[in-house]
Amino acid sequence: MRELTVAAPQFAASEEPSENLDKAEAVVRAAAAGGARLILLQELFETRYFCITEEPRHLGLAQPFEGNPLIARFADLARELGVVLPVPFFEKAGQAHFNSVAVVDADGRVLGVYRKSHIPQNPGYEEKFYFSPGDTGFRVWETAVGRIGVGICWDQWFPEAARAMALMGAEILLYPSAIGSEPELPGYDSQPHWETVMRGHAAANLMPLVASNRIGDEPQGGREVMFYGSSFIAGPAGEILAKGSRDREEIVTATIDLEACAQMRAGWGLFRDRRPDLYGRLNAL
Amino acid sequence: MRELTVAAPQFAASEEPSENLDKAEAVVRAAAAGGARLILLQELFETRYFCITEEPRHLGLAQPFEGNPLIARFADLARELGVVLPVPFFEKAGQAHFNSVAVVDADGRVLGVYRKSHIPQNPGYEEKFYFSPGDTGFRVWETAVGRIGVGICWDQWFPEAARAMALMGAEILLYPSAIGSEPELPGYDSQPHWETVMRGHAAANLMPLVASNRIGDEPQGGREVMFYGSSFIAGPAGEILAKGSRDREEIVTATIDLEACAQMRAGWGLFRDRRPDLYGRLNAL
Repeated sequence: MRELTVAAPQFAASEEPSENLDKAEAVVRAAAAGGARLILLQELFETRYFCITEEPRHLGLAQPFEGNPLIARFADLARELGVVLPVPFFEKAGQAHFNSVAVVDADGRVLGVYRKSHIPQNPGYEEKFYFSPGDTGFRVWETAVGRIGVGICWDQWFPEAARAMALMGAEILLYPSAIGSEPELPGYDSQPHWETVMRGHAAANLMPLVASNRIGDEPQGGREVMFYGSSFIAGPAGEILAKGSRDREEIVTATIDLEACAQMRAGWGLFRDRRPDLYGRLNAL
Repeated sequence: MRELTVAAPQFAASEEPSENLDKAEAVVRAAAAGGARLILLQELFETRYFCITEEPRHLGLAQPFEGNPLIARFADLARELGVVLPVPFFEKAGQAHFNSVAVVDADGRVLGVYRKSHIPQNPGYEEKFYFSPGDTGFRVWETAVGRIGVGICWDQWFPEAARAMALMGAEILLYPSAIGSEPELPGYDSQPHWETVMRGHAAANLMPLVASNRIGDEPQGGREVMFYGSSFIAGPAGEILAKGSRDREEIVTATIDLEACAQMRAGWGLFRDRRPDLYGRLNAL
């Protein structure tokens, strides 16, 4: 047995970044107190989801990876609590802007950065205005709790990303998110679709998966997105182990035996029977 | 609107092939009478699932694609009823044996053959003994009801196969199956896992998906597999539109608007935002 308790806190964002950082610190402390050793904060948790409309001034929120005070603060926290902590942040790199995550190990070491590969552009989710498509490629991280793969939000819709991280040796897949209502499709609810896609990744890769997603209503520039929470942790058959509400701040937690997952992954034979000789079509649009 | 009624019959196999062919014809007639224009028969429906143990004599069941009387009979039936009908069969090709499907259009034309790409080998599912891995690659078929993609059973566990067919322009994914209990894992039930993986393919590709699976208990060579039916039809968000029982012969049917699916597929942006430049890792084990 190699048991890991993971937590996906979900919370609402205020207009004041310092309040969001304090709240994030508080939920990380609470999750660690509850026994979690891997804690998944939400996408871009420092701010409201500023991509609801296209406003150049929000580009000024981006900060470099090196010397980043947000990452430093949460790296200190990770070391103090002994938890593995991916830290989503808005990154400025030269003239480019990325939607990124710094991965911090349980000893506070910053292992590196992953830049979101798949960038959406739909009404209310105007990310191609703000972010370049990530140039790091998919990455996995050797941490104190095991080898983790981290994608970011829209990445979660792509089986290729999940499979690539699985093939690189990931033992668990993590997706910080910011998704909710579609401002131009009143009444439309993507939540079941969103969940089904990721449960499919877990099931196809026999690998646990965690999605954290903010809650709350965020108006911006005449538009409004109601984020639907529903953070969840899935097991290696794609089954839901724990799931949050659509509208309450809470810490979704589950304990997973990573060794049992590894045995299931090997025994079921999917990774033995792949046919890479036939997958060339995937290398084009 | 471009509405298509699809049917996935599920039934038990007898030890007598002629009885199975008669039953298959009867269910195809019943499905067509119910309005179905695309009907998905089960994997290897002519016989019991002979792969439960490794017995060389069963290799004699294979027949060539050309001049195949089973295909000819069901091609005649497809023409008579005006239905698109994939015809799973055990294929002999030179010295090789394949787990195959011939695709028959609604005018009775045999469009070609697909050979199962992913071959399992687990206790009770000894397919690597019987079948070579398919050499056709994934295929899609322009038919009277739209462009269809057909995989076979174990193919249904691989996101790569579903994605390849989607990229080739499939409008619906079909998986004839033979899956049930694991003889060496008493009490283990793969059914939810099986379903979750395929619902994930539907959701990730915004594409309806049909799985047909036999029912019934089949003893062979001291082993026994209880096939669990549960044939289903999923919609483009991975939602279940119709689903069969685990143990009754029935015809699972749903009506899908392929045009609405196509609009959803284009509008959601997943096929716009893929990053083939980052998918190279998928081309190796």
